[in-house]
Amino acid sequence: MLELPLSLSGTRMVPKLVVLYLFLCLANISLCEARIRHYKWDVKYEYKSPDCFKKLVITINGRTPGPTILAQEGDTIIVQLNNSLFTENLAIHWHGIHQHGTPWFDGTEGVTQCPILPGDTFKYQFVVDRPGTYLYHAHYGMQREAGLYGMIRVSPRDPEPFTYDYEQSIILNDWYHRSTNEQATGLSSKTFVWVGDPQSLLIQGKGRFDCSKLTAPSLDAGLCNLSNPECSTYVQTVIPGKTYRLRVASLTALSALSFQIEGHNMTVVEADGHYVEPFVVQNLFLYSGETYSVLVKADRDRSRNYWITSNVVSRNRTTPPGLGIFNYYPNHPRRSPPSTPPSPPAWDDVEPRLAQSLAIKARSGSVIQPPPTSDRVIVLLNTQNTIDGYRRWSVNNVSLTLPRTPFLVALKHNITDAFDQTPPPDGYDSLGYDIFKVANNTNATSNNGIYRLKFNTTVDIVLQNANTMNKNNSETHPWHLHGHDFWVLGYGKGKFDVNRDPKKYNLVNPIMKNTVAVHPYGWTALRFRTENPGVWTFHCHIEAHFYMGMGVIFEEGIERVGKLPSSIMGCGRTRGFRSNNTP
Amino acid sequence: MLELPLSLSGTRMVPKLVVLYLFLCLANISLCEARIRHYKWDVKYEYKSPDCFKKLVITINGRTPGPTILAQEGDTIIVQLNNSLFTENLAIHWHGIHQHGTPWFDGTEGVTQCPILPGDTFKYQFVVDRPGTYLYHAHYGMQREAGLYGMIRVSPRDPEPFTYDYEQSIILNDWYHRSTNEQATGLSSKTFVWVGDPQSLLIQGKGRFDCSKLTAPSLDAGLCNLSNPECSTYVQTVIPGKTYRLRVASLTALSALSFQIEGHNMTVVEADGHYVEPFVVQNLFLYSGETYSVLVKADRDRSRNYWITSNVVSRNRTTPPGLGIFNYYPNHPRRSPPSTPPSPPAWDDVEPRLAQSLAIKARSGSVIQPPPTSDRVIVLLNTQNTIDGYRRWSVNNVSLTLPRTPFLVALKHNITDAFDQTPPPDGYDSLGYDIFKVANNTNATSNNGIYRLKFNTTVDIVLQNANTMNKNNSETHPWHLHGHDFWVLGYGKGKFDVNRDPKKYNLVNPIMKNTVAVHPYGWTALRFRTENPGVWTFHCHIEAHFYMGMGVIFEEGIERVGKLPSSIMGCGRTRGFRSNNTP
Repeated sequence: MLELPLSLSGTRMVPKLVVLYLFLCLANISLCEARIRHYKWDVKYEYKSPDCFKKLVITINGRTPGPTILAQEGDTIIVQLNNSLFTENLAIHWHGIHQHGTPWFDGTEGVTQCPILPGDTFKYQFVVDRPGTYLYHAHYGMQREAGLYGMIRVSPRDPEPFTYDYEQSIILNDWYHRSTNEQATGLSSKTFVWVGDPQSLLIQGKGRFDCSKLTAPSLDAGLCNLSNPECSTYVQTVIPGKTYRLRVASLTALSALSFQIEGHNMTVVEADGHYVEPFVVQNLFLYSGETYSVLVKADRDRSRNYWITSNVVSRNRTTPPGLGIFNYYPNHPRRSPPSTPPSPPAWDDVEPRLAQSLAIKARSGSVIQPPPTSDRVIVLLNTQNTIDGYRRWSVNNVSLTLPRTPFLVALKHNITDAFDQTPPPDGYDSLGYDIFKVANNTNATSNNGIYRLKFNTTVDIVLQNANTMNKNNSETHPWHLHGHDFWVLGYGKGKFDVNRDPKKYNLVNPIMKNTVAVHPYGWTALRFRTENPGVWTFHCHIEAHFYMGMGVIFEEGIERVGKLPSSIMGCGRTRGFRSNNTP
Repeated sequence: MLELPLSLSGTRMVPKLVVLYLFLCLANISLCEARIRHYKWDVKYEYKSPDCFKKLVITINGRTPGPTILAQEGDTIIVQLNNSLFTENLAIHWHGIHQHGTPWFDGTEGVTQCPILPGDTFKYQFVVDRPGTYLYHAHYGMQREAGLYGMIRVSPRDPEPFTYDYEQSIILNDWYHRSTNEQATGLSSKTFVWVGDPQSLLIQGKGRFDCSKLTAPSLDAGLCNLSNPECSTYVQTVIPGKTYRLRVASLTALSALSFQIEGHNMTVVEADGHYVEPFVVQNLFLYSGETYSVLVKADRDRSRNYWITSNVVSRNRTTPPGLGIFNYYPNHPRRSPPSTPPSPPAWDDVEPRLAQSLAIKARSGSVIQPPPTSDRVIVLLNTQNTIDGYRRWSVNNVSLTLPRTPFLVALKHNITDAFDQTPPPDGYDSLGYDIFKVANNTNATSNNGIYRLKFNTTVDIVLQNANTMNKNNSETHPWHLHGHDFWVLGYGKGKFDVNRDPKKYNLVNPIMKNTVAVHPYGWTALRFRTENPGVWTFHCHIEAHFYMGMGVIFEEGIERVGKLPSSIMGCGRTRGFRSNNTP
């Protein structure tokens, strides 16, 4: 893993570097202005052993996680993506990037584009208009789980409100040995087969599966090999006394995680690209789709190494911890810490997780004030259902299916038969529904109706959690909104009360995020402005849950969307379209 | 397996049924005329255990092999194919069907159509203009191996020149446990990984893998289960004294096969839809893509059952025989025969296979005379090569790659930049090439040039086999021609001599076929008429070999091809095309 120590904002090196920077500006104007950063990616299947178990993964230029995109605020990113898969299409989403003016490059198959065919090259082009830590990943079928993901780091033009010496990216993930086709087959069969717990947890693409767990027979003797260098333990080498900014992100398929560095405090300073009023944690809880920056000072006994751990929370974990080494230079990077890895928090203790959620506020001096009121309130109750014999997730009794014609093109070109024109409801029967009980939800349907939002208005979303189809069970769902950041106005336990609870909203210094958790049996309230013309997905970031219908689609300002590029068309009712066509 | 005993041509039942048939004709005119046979197929992934080993297969309406298409000569077949795969495209080829007037429905991805996207429905429509035994299967990537195949049985309007009481379809196959993605990854890596021998042989979709061979560990305890009914032994029940027409076909990925019914002679009467001058065999050799009808009389000791066997020939077999039961009614269908299965012929004995090839002549009275001379002779030398570090197969030093834009559309719409406009050579340096030695073939290239054939002419093709990249090794290749039947003019050993060998051609009663083998270190000479406007693939039917470039493309009469349906367009340079577009 090669990462540049971007020290522009490092404590001691700043003055010298500012001089250097100014000098370089004079010598080369492009350093001071927005640059175009051009990437050429070849996407294909390769055998890899991220956790010592050999399986087919989808790589970018031979790597999973894919290459980190390094850019500066205002830069234009161009990714020329070549699909070298055999018979499979592709689409890649730029997670956290707003795509102002380029909603067609959001990379969401069925929503903003047609899939990219094998052999085709697709050019994504967008501006990274905010500094921060973002992600990219496949957004088609369940391909994200096959390893197609990476990080986007956007450095700011202005000085940051905190200092550090070095920075490092760490993507956390969980890892399944079954192929995405196998998982999707189980999920979409009438004899429903759940994906189950992941086989291992990865830290920056490296994990360790206990090969001795393979008890049933298979053909391939080299299937599991603990000495494969691809699954060597992840090592973060630190210089004693220095402060590190760790950009930690989760792209788990399923798992909520607790991330720890043995014996070290972490000061949370950024979340989803927004500065956080600093607070200190020992366990950083992360939900799939979230990114955080934490500052860690290497200020402990320098004669030894320390464990980096990742553990499943919120589900009764059977997956062993992901382990890495926090290596104090000059100790040998592979030298095991003398201690046992720290114990994770109890998996079923919601309180510390809710406490972390509540602790995340916008940093003083960086607060973006939310509008004091909203124009529309949409309460989204998520439920697990059986629809036509299939297990699904629904939102207000609607389980989302994606149309063959991308919503964006259908809306822009007014193809009204491409999807269900009846919008899903703004709420549910909150009086008649007991969120603590297993419910029948017999009225649930699978369809592709969408929410049409008035442009330039303020919308409140209340995510309401409930019991699943199993008694005494409610799950954590991380919801991710495309094209926007939202203010997180509040969290609560039990059923949201539309009269009382909004009075407790934090309108003073709410954090803005693009991904937020709704905790078991709880609710989460969000607010956002409909100022980004396009069609945007809002969905549970658990891969299997979105696949099972747990998401909604928002349209806003479709009439303000510019001319769509023909590259996103060609499927469904847009077969035969080209740039100068209208239907 | 439900098959109707089509007894119209059965010996004893004919008079009664003819009366019935005539009566029905008066009552319903459609029985006497060409009918439209409409099929709706849903194609998806499902877990199946054809050989007791559970893996993901591609099914049609829940089945592999898919449903048999039953039709009468002159009927129109309409197949509405819904792609319910998750992220994979599709195309289905109608193997042996000429597609006169509908070359766009040949189903060959990259040649005659764009792939069918997930969620899309594609309508294939074509006339089955000749009686006989044909096949259908996926023709995209290596999807055929995933189980997407079946049989087409076209009954004749005229009486057949042989009689039987009942008929039965049997598709032979070999079976791999790895996914097609895994196989294709190995084949297309610089660190080349061959697919290896198949794990089992299937008879009409049923085989038996020895689960105790799984020595290395895996996660899934139910992976291999010998008591799964999906891998129950294939049983052909016969009534003592009756004569059966067995329509036997091979759709192996790799293997040449010997098919036997213990203690029973088989009289070969049809090959690839053409009547054969009857001859008797104990072993019927079949190469991938071939179909045969054999007559078998149940005239042995009726107190017992007999083995049906399928064995690998031409490669040193490590795959155990495929076994079925030839069940004499009323013995119990599952009762094992009291004998051991008959031994197959020696795998490396070419002579009996060459002898069978030579024995197949057109049936007296059904001979279609070939033109006495040809207008063009193309000699195709097949070689194994390393090109740019990748292992490939080449024909006259050209390894075929398929373009993103289907050849048919590119040619019809004159899109000259869609593929290499330089045609591959009509021959090779036959003086300077030793077919018995490993050759460097350093001039081999991967490209997509094609042969342009003059319409309404006679073309001779000589397939010339050679040594592979391994010493003292030459393989058997079954070559399949789309859109045509060809006359098989002769087979020979060693290097074809353009001056002497044509004099030995059989111009009297050569069989017509669509698939023919070229034997190790040998040659095979074919002749066909260019009377079918379209673009036609001619290729080795071994899935991995075609994938590695072992094929050529013939264009003939492109100017006579009618207006292309827009359903085959939409990819590559035809993105944005619709029916009324020209580029």
